[in-house]
Amino acid sequence: MTPPPAPRPPLDRKNLALRLGTAFVFAIFFLTLLYLGDQPWAQVTFCLLLGGALVMGVAEFTRMGRKLGHRPSLAAGALAGLAILLHFFLLGLHPTDPLPLWLALTLAGAAIHFGALFFERDLDSALTSQALTWLGALYLGLGLGFQVKLFMFTGSALANTGGRLILALYLIVWMGDSAAYFVGSLLGRHKLAPRVSPKKTWEGALGNLGGNLAAAFLIKATACPQWTAVDAAAIGLLLGTVGQLGDLVESTWKRSAHVKDSNMGGIAIPGHGGLLDRIDSLVFAAPALYAYVHFVHGLN
Amino acid sequence: MTPPPAPRPPLDRKNLALRLGTAFVFAIFFLTLLYLGDQPWAQVTFCLLLGGALVMGVAEFTRMGRKLGHRPSLAAGALAGLAILLHFFLLGLHPTDPLPLWLALTLAGAAIHFGALFFERDLDSALTSQALTWLGALYLGLGLGFQVKLFMFTGSALANTGGRLILALYLIVWMGDSAAYFVGSLLGRHKLAPRVSPKKTWEGALGNLGGNLAAAFLIKATACPQWTAVDAAAIGLLLGTVGQLGDLVESTWKRSAHVKDSNMGGIAIPGHGGLLDRIDSLVFAAPALYAYVHFVHGLN
Repeated sequence: MTPPPAPRPPLDRKNLALRLGTAFVFAIFFLTLLYLGDQPWAQVTFCLLLGGALVMGVAEFTRMGRKLGHRPSLAAGALAGLAILLHFFLLGLHPTDPLPLWLALTLAGAAIHFGALFFERDLDSALTSQALTWLGALYLGLGLGFQVKLFMFTGSALANTGGRLILALYLIVWMGDSAAYFVGSLLGRHKLAPRVSPKKTWEGALGNLGGNLAAAFLIKATACPQWTAVDAAAIGLLLGTVGQLGDLVESTWKRSAHVKDSNMGGIAIPGHGGLLDRIDSLVFAAPALYAYVHFVHGLN
Repeated sequence: MTPPPAPRPPLDRKNLALRLGTAFVFAIFFLTLLYLGDQPWAQVTFCLLLGGALVMGVAEFTRMGRKLGHRPSLAAGALAGLAILLHFFLLGLHPTDPLPLWLALTLAGAAIHFGALFFERDLDSALTSQALTWLGALYLGLGLGFQVKLFMFTGSALANTGGRLILALYLIVWMGDSAAYFVGSLLGRHKLAPRVSPKKTWEGALGNLGGNLAAAFLIKATACPQWTAVDAAAIGLLLGTVGQLGDLVESTWKRSAHVKDSNMGGIAIPGHGGLLDRIDSLVFAAPALYAYVHFVHGLN
């Protein structure tokens, strides 16, 4: 005897329209920036944009930790995260790396741990609070830092390599995300991870990979013509797998903090929930794409 | 009206003898290893030794987190920490860095976050548990990793640069520690940080710096004759300050976990409490010494 199939959730058209509208506005802005990616000011703008997102993300992270009764530090977490982000920006500008990652991490550690000694009045939850501050700084600093490094990649025969790679990252992740939403809403039957994210289904996950692959081949046909079919397939599957795992990781965090929306009453992205909800797949996909083009294509 | 001076704590002779005895055994072993530091097998032995200490430290860390009701992962934390340690070892062997720090951190993140998705049955405290796993991995991985890198330094005119630097690190930190113990026990009156570490006094802290400076000049006179007096003073004060702050940081963690001894019933170092208690100053002093000899002396 098999259990009866779960009822199909209705397609949420209002949220979908808002979601697509917001995505459209972002897309226009983003494509402009990517097209101009070889300009130094475009690199600075991109880094500043991600710096702003980093502070917003650390703030959401801090609120989540405080909801659990801990005291992660927004100031120390943002400073630590920005130091890591700045490392990737400077590495993109100067291969000699004036702020190596070990130094950024050492300064981050000093800000988080010594900062707590000097500025935190309530040290009763020092261990967990400082651990949460680190996690927010690493999650946003590395997750967004790899995007900065990708954007500043040069060295392929084509102009504007970095812009093409960021376009690839976003299109692959977001087309997978959208495909999962449609396929999951229309065909979803078998629960993927009911404890973690009860709405996700195996059908949606496969739809996600289909969207990832379609996007990767679209990128190969347009922005990155030097990719082989093997590259496109490998990058699509890699980013799709890692991105979906990253999405689940963030879901477990929210669940453990009894939070439905990482935003929790702060600034929202219309139709998209909190910032962390929107970037959770990108955070893990960015280092995966970086590793692929670094080790397979030899970009530096 | 000033409050009456606090009663002077008695000098604990039994613990002191045990402490000195253990230190003596370690010293013999250590000096032998340092003297042979240019041998490849000595570098491997040192790295393995610190790898063992890393796992022991992560285990103490994990016990502390579990005492607070969280579920940090010993396996993921140890793997993540060892990846970071291995980065420093390989960097010491090959300047081209086959396991760059960004890759070690990416693999660490995958082990900690994806590992929890696949292997952790109870995800109710996912956010704090994974944050604690990261903190243990970073604390031990970076703290001990910088020692590995220091030990593998070459490039000064003298043979065995790395052994000399590790000797400097340990002697400066531990002579400061011992001086603080004697001066604090004999003369301590004014509490330094009663909330965090009630036994520490300003007199002890100044004694600590005195011990750091004396050790730094002793090192200049013997193992590192190329140091100037400014080098010795700067390194003594830098390591003494950072080391004492690091000691306080670890004290706040133990206090927040309601733990007196980081060891908590695991393997102890006789007379010295847990491993974390013993290395807390070294963890922060090692990157400080590394940064000094890297930026001021140009060692790579």
